[in-house]
Amino acid sequence: MDAYTPTARSKVKRLHERGRYDRESVFAVLDASLFCHIGYVIDGQPYVTPTGFWRVDDHLYWHGSSASRMLRTQSAGIPVCFTVMIVDGLVLARSGFHHSVNYRSVMAFGQARKIEDNEEKRAALNAYVDRFLPQRNRELRPIDAQELKATTLLGMTIEEASAKIRTGPPKDDEPDYELPVWAGVVPVRQVFGEPVPDPRLRDGTKVPLHVATLAPGADFSAVMARLAKSY
Amino acid sequence: MDAYTPTARSKVKRLHERGRYDRESVFAVLDASLFCHIGYVIDGQPYVTPTGFWRVDDHLYWHGSSASRMLRTQSAGIPVCFTVMIVDGLVLARSGFHHSVNYRSVMAFGQARKIEDNEEKRAALNAYVDRFLPQRNRELRPIDAQELKATTLLGMTIEEASAKIRTGPPKDDEPDYELPVWAGVVPVRQVFGEPVPDPRLRDGTKVPLHVATLAPGADFSAVMARLAKSY
Repeated sequence: MDAYTPTARSKVKRLHERGRYDRESVFAVLDASLFCHIGYVIDGQPYVTPTGFWRVDDHLYWHGSSASRMLRTQSAGIPVCFTVMIVDGLVLARSGFHHSVNYRSVMAFGQARKIEDNEEKRAALNAYVDRFLPQRNRELRPIDAQELKATTLLGMTIEEASAKIRTGPPKDDEPDYELPVWAGVVPVRQVFGEPVPDPRLRDGTKVPLHVATLAPGADFSAVMARLAKSY
Repeated sequence: MDAYTPTARSKVKRLHERGRYDRESVFAVLDASLFCHIGYVIDGQPYVTPTGFWRVDDHLYWHGSSASRMLRTQSAGIPVCFTVMIVDGLVLARSGFHHSVNYRSVMAFGQARKIEDNEEKRAALNAYVDRFLPQRNRELRPIDAQELKATTLLGMTIEEASAKIRTGPPKDDEPDYELPVWAGVVPVRQVFGEPVPDPRLRDGTKVPLHVATLAPGADFSAVMARLAKSY
């Protein structure tokens, strides 16, 4: 129940010791991000669309992409590969061969479907804003009927998934440790900057708490992971 | 010559005013990144693999992915979609509908092929290290025959590509500008952290210039773009 079953599709093949299949590991990576890459096929041609997403239990949602063209005629859904990667560092080894990257990634498989029901759609779109801007919806006017119609919302239930994670220092060949080469990790992280108010902001409009949460210098993935636990 | 011709495959459909097809715009996005998502198809199932990459003119290279399984039997190449996205900020509008993201992205299409020639392979792998760590190869021992054999190197020539870029403040519906809602952009960027030396580093090994270039707090995409011009 708490782990996805690895199959030929989702089993981590290269460097398989980095693979994990438990829901906790998979969800931890998904929740530390807000962006994904969706892969789908039209007439044999692969497409990869980057987009924002949010998770509710085993369900993933994202805004309409070009895949929606295909979904117009296929309400049954189309197979997609849903991939997330967070880069944590550049790994500098004592040989070119062992240079690597520290990262957290997830590959999830399922059938993308278009969400047509207006109430499901409204709830999901509100959940998206609340996912990274808690309580912002309380300050916004409701989505109107025209906006709801103009938004393509896609979703999938995770059928299988794997996480792949690398952490720690380089792993060099034993004899290479004697070489006088600098080796180690250069961390890379995503951080927030100082909020830039809209030039047309009404005078006296204060920065609300949900924007202050995205604090300048704060780690994007740490803030996203924390917010995911609370909404 | 200086622009890719948009076709049904590469033409930006949603929010097409954000699309660009000139090589300069496409290369600028590619060169500001070091990571991509590669989409390919095996038996009708899409896969999206995140990996590191580097560019030489119209050619893109990356390390072996699961696609290499398929390439074992298809030296002619397989169609791939090569996607890069750099997130620049969260765009907070006065309505849920107009919330957006500032980003730079590229979608490139071509045929992935396995690079088998040892000299081409060696040159390309050295170029990868030099791409983000200029002159590091001078300090490293050469790749040996066994390492060369163990590395799967894939490449493609860009057949078509489009860049899609969003910048600037939110675009709200005109009446919504009267609302007392905070709107603006929360910038997001990737930065380097303080280098973490390998615990097994030989005493007295100094941090070389190419590591100092990846300076703590420096913007990852700005450094990558600058390095791309010099190697």
